Amino acid sequence: MEIESAITQEKAGLLARVWGWFKPLPGKFKAKVLGVAKSTKQLGKDDPRRVIHSLKVGLALTLVSLFYYWRPLYDGIGIAGMWAVLTVVVVFEFSVGATLCKSLNRGLATLLAGALGVGAQHLASLFADREEPIVLGILVFLQAAASTFSRFFPRIKARYDYGVLIFILTFSMISVSGYRIEELLDMANQRLYTILIGGATCIFISIFVCPVWSGGDLHNLIASNIDKLANYLEGFGDEYFQTSENEGCATASTKNDKSFLQGYKSVLTSKGTEDSLANFARWEPGHGRFLFRHPWKQYLKVGALARQCAYHIETLNSHINADDVVQAPQEFVRAIKPSCTKMSSESGKALKALASAIKAMKHPTSANQHVDESKAAVDDLKMALESASNIEDTDLLTIVPTTTVASILVEIVKCVEKISESMHELSQLAQFKSVEPTVSPEKQLHLLHRGSVNPVLDGDDSTAFDDHVVIITVLDDQKAGKNTPEEIIENVPQAPKPSGVV
Amino acid sequence: MEIESAITQEKAGLLARVWGWFKPLPGKFKAKVLGVAKSTKQLGKDDPRRVIHSLKVGLALTLVSLFYYWRPLYDGIGIAGMWAVLTVVVVFEFSVGATLCKSLNRGLATLLAGALGVGAQHLASLFADREEPIVLGILVFLQAAASTFSRFFPRIKARYDYGVLIFILTFSMISVSGYRIEELLDMANQRLYTILIGGATCIFISIFVCPVWSGGDLHNLIASNIDKLANYLEGFGDEYFQTSENEGCATASTKNDKSFLQGYKSVLTSKGTEDSLANFARWEPGHGRFLFRHPWKQYLKVGALARQCAYHIETLNSHINADDVVQAPQEFVRAIKPSCTKMSSESGKALKALASAIKAMKHPTSANQHVDESKAAVDDLKMALESASNIEDTDLLTIVPTTTVASILVEIVKCVEKISESMHELSQLAQFKSVEPTVSPEKQLHLLHRGSVNPVLDGDDSTAFDDHVVIITVLDDQKAGKNTPEEIIENVPQAPKPSGVV
Repeated sequence: MEIESAITQEKAGLLARVWGWFKPLPGKFKAKVLGVAKSTKQLGKDDPRRVIHSLKVGLALTLVSLFYYWRPLYDGIGIAGMWAVLTVVVVFEFSVGATLCKSLNRGLATLLAGALGVGAQHLASLFADREEPIVLGILVFLQAAASTFSRFFPRIKARYDYGVLIFILTFSMISVSGYRIEELLDMANQRLYTILIGGATCIFISIFVCPVWSGGDLHNLIASNIDKLANYLEGFGDEYFQTSENEGCATASTKNDKSFLQGYKSVLTSKGTEDSLANFARWEPGHGRFLFRHPWKQYLKVGALARQCAYHIETLNSHINADDVVQAPQEFVRAIKPSCTKMSSESGKALKALASAIKAMKHPTSANQHVDESKAAVDDLKMALESASNIEDTDLLTIVPTTTVASILVEIVKCVEKISESMHELSQLAQFKSVEPTVSPEKQLHLLHRGSVNPVLDGDDSTAFDDHVVIITVLDDQKAGKNTPEEIIENVPQAPKPSGVV
Repeated sequence: MEIESAITQEKAGLLARVWGWFKPLPGKFKAKVLGVAKSTKQLGKDDPRRVIHSLKVGLALTLVSLFYYWRPLYDGIGIAGMWAVLTVVVVFEFSVGATLCKSLNRGLATLLAGALGVGAQHLASLFADREEPIVLGILVFLQAAASTFSRFFPRIKARYDYGVLIFILTFSMISVSGYRIEELLDMANQRLYTILIGGATCIFISIFVCPVWSGGDLHNLIASNIDKLANYLEGFGDEYFQTSENEGCATASTKNDKSFLQGYKSVLTSKGTEDSLANFARWEPGHGRFLFRHPWKQYLKVGALARQCAYHIETLNSHINADDVVQAPQEFVRAIKPSCTKMSSESGKALKALASAIKAMKHPTSANQHVDESKAAVDDLKMALESASNIEDTDLLTIVPTTTVASILVEIVKCVEKISESMHELSQLAQFKSVEPTVSPEKQLHLLHRGSVNPVLDGDDSTAFDDHVVIITVLDDQKAGKNTPEEIIENVPQAPKPSGVV
C-alpha cells in the first residue's frame, strides 16, 4: 500500500513537473511572437526604406522569374535562366551604389574570366588527352591561389572583392566544365546574357524605384554626426556648472538631460559605416545635387575630425560623470564659468551651423562667427585664469577638475575650428551654393577675401536659394521613401541609361 | 617654303609631344610593377597565413574539380557538380569560424528552403494550369520580401545573413524551376549533395590544414591592443616631463620616440574587427586551450574598456603635441612630476602584465600590484597638489596644461583598474590556469581571498605550468602557419568530425 501510494505520488509529482514545464510555454511563445512583432514594427518605423527595399527585392525576383514562366524566352535561355535568379538575389543591395558595385563587378569579372577560361581550355586542348585534366588542374590552382591572394590588397578588398570572387568562380567553372560540355562558348554566352538580364533588372529597379543613395546617406550621416556633437556641447556648459553650483536640486534635471548628452557616443564608432558608404558612393552616377565626381573623400576627412572631437568629448564626459568631483571655491567657479560656458556653447553653435549648412548644401559661412566667438572665449578664459591666480587661499586640489574641463574645452574649440576649415574645403570642392540672400554686399566681399566662397553674381542669389529648397525637399522625400519614379527621373539628369551601364 | 617648314616643324613638335608621352611609359610601367611586387611581398610578410590561405583555396578548388574529371562521379552527379565548385569559391573564408558559419548557413538554408520550395510547388499544382504561375509568383514575392526584411534584424544580420540569402535563392530556384523541370526532387537532392561535398571539403581543409582560428585571433588582438596602450603609458611620463623640462635638446629624441607613441591609434577603431572575430569565434569548435563555450563576449567587454582608455590617451596625446604648452614653474613641475610619472608608468606596467597574462592564458595576478601602485600614485598626486598650493606666486595659466595632463592620467588609472577587473572576470570565466610556481602559499591564500582565482591543488602547479608552455608554442606556431595536420589533431580533442558537422 505504502509503496503504491509512494509511486502514485511520485508519478503525480513528475506529471506536475512536466506540466509546470509545459504550462508557461504558450504564454512564453505569445510573448516571444509579440516581441518579434514589436521589433519588426520598430525596424520599419526607424527607416521605412527597409520595407520598400524588401518589396523591391520581391519585385525584381518576381520579374526575373517571368523568364521561366514565359515559354518563348525559356526556350531561348534554358536552364541558364537560373543564373538570372541567382544574380538578382546576390546582387540586389540596399543602396544604388552597392547594387551598382556588385553588378558591375559581377558583369566585368564574368566577361574577363569567361575569356580567360576559354583560353585556358584551348591551351589545355593542345596537350594529349591524358595530360589535359592535369594542365587544367594546375591552371585552376594557380589562378585561384593568385586571385585569392589579391583579395588581401586593401584597395582591391574595398572595391573589387566581389569581382575577384566571381572571377575565380567563372574561370573555374568554364575551364573545368569545358572539359565535358562541348558547347563551351554557348555556355559562356548564356551565362553572360542571364547575368546581364539579372543585373540590369536590379540596377533599373534600384535606381528608378525609390532609390537609396549611399552618397546621400553619407552626406546625412556626417551632418547628423556633427549635429550630435553640437547638441552635447550646447548642453554641456549649463549642465556642468549647474551641477557644480547647486548639486542637490540639480540631480533630477541632470538625469532628464542625460539622454541627449549620450547622442555623441555613436560618432565614436561610425568610421566603418562612413568608409563603406563613401566606397559605394563612388560607384553612383550623379543624382540630385550630387555630381558624378562629388568629393566623397572630403566627407571622410570631415568625419575623421568629427570623431577626433568626439574622443575629446568622451574624456570631457568622464569628468561630468565623475562622482569624486571636488567642489571648487565659488569665487573661482564664478571667475571661469562665463568663458567655459561660452566656449562650449559657441563651439556647439558653430557645429550646429556647419551641420545645417551641410544639410542644405550651402557655404558654411554662418559658422565663422561662432568659431571666432569660441576662440575669443579661449582668450577670455586665459584672462580669467590669470585674474583667478590672485584669489587668496586657492586650494589647487579643488580647482583641478574644473580647470581640466576648461582645458579640454580649449582642445575642442581647436577641433571645431579644424572641422570648420575642412567643411569650407568640402563646400568649395563640392561647389555648394554660396550666399544667403540676407548677407549684405560688404559682408560678401569680406567673405570672398577669406577665400572660402566662390564669387556669385548678385542676380544668381534668388535662383540659387530656390535650388536649395528643392534639394532639401528631395533629400527629405528620399529619406521617407516617397519618391515616385517620375520625380527621380526629373532630379537625376546625369543618371546613365541602365542598358548602357552594363 | 615657309609654310612647308612650319608644317614640318609642327609635325616634329607633335611627334616630340607624342614621344614625350610614350617615352616615360615603360619606366612608369616598370615602377608600377615593382611597386606591386613590393607590396605583395610585404602583404605576405606581414601575415604569412595569407599565402597559405591562398594555397588552401587553390587546393580545395582543384580537389572539387576532380568531380568533373573523374568520369564515374561525373555521370552520377552531372552538371550539378558545378554547385560544388560554386560552394567552395563562395564558402571558403580566411578563418575556420567564418568558413563554418558560411557552410552551415548554406547547408541548413538549402535544406529548409528546398523543403519549403517543394511545398510551394505542390501548393501551386493544386490550382488550375493558368493560375499556377500566378500563385508561384505571389509566393516568391512574399518570401523574398519577408526574408529580405528579416536581414535588417541586427541579430540575424550578424549570424545568419548568408543563410537568409541562400534561403531566398534556393526557394526561388526550386519553386520557379519546378514549374518547368519535372525532376524536382532530384534537383533539390543533387543540389544538397553537391553543396555537402563542397562544404565538407572546405571545412575539412580549413580545420586540418594550417587552421586560422578567429577565436585565437580575437584573443591575440585584445592582448596586443592592451599591449599598445601599455607602450604608450610606459613611455608617456618620461616623454612629457622631459619635454617640459629641457625642451630644446629633447626634440630629437621626441621625434624618434613618436612611432611607438602612435601605436594606440589602431585601438581607437578596432571595434568592427573585434565584433566580427567574436561573431565567427562562436561558430568554432573547441581547439587548443579554447573550449567550445569560451567566453568570447567577455573579450568584447575588455576590448570596449581598452578603447575607452584609448580615447583618454587620445586626449592626453593632444596635450603632448600642443605647441602652445605654457611652461609651468619649475618648482611646481618638480612637485607633481613623481606622482604623474608613477601613475603613467605603473598603469602602463599593469596593462603590460595584463597583456602578457592574457597571452599566456594565466590569471592576471601579477597586474594587481601595479594597479595598487598606480592608485597609490593618485593619492600622492593629491598630496603633491595640496602642498603645491602653498607655492607662492603660482600663475594658474602656466600650470593648467600640466594639471590637465595629471587629471587625465587619473582617469586613465581608473580605466586601467576597470580593465584589470574585467580581465579577472574573463580569467575566471575562461578558467585560465592560475598560479605561477614562484608564488608563495601565503600569497596564494591572499589571492584566493580576493575572489579572483580558482582553488588549485599544490600538486597541480607544475602540470598547469607545463600546459602554458605547450599552448604558447601552439599559438605562436599557428600564427606563423607552421602547424602540420597531425599537430592540430593532437591539440584539438574537441573538434567534431567534419562529416558530422553538416
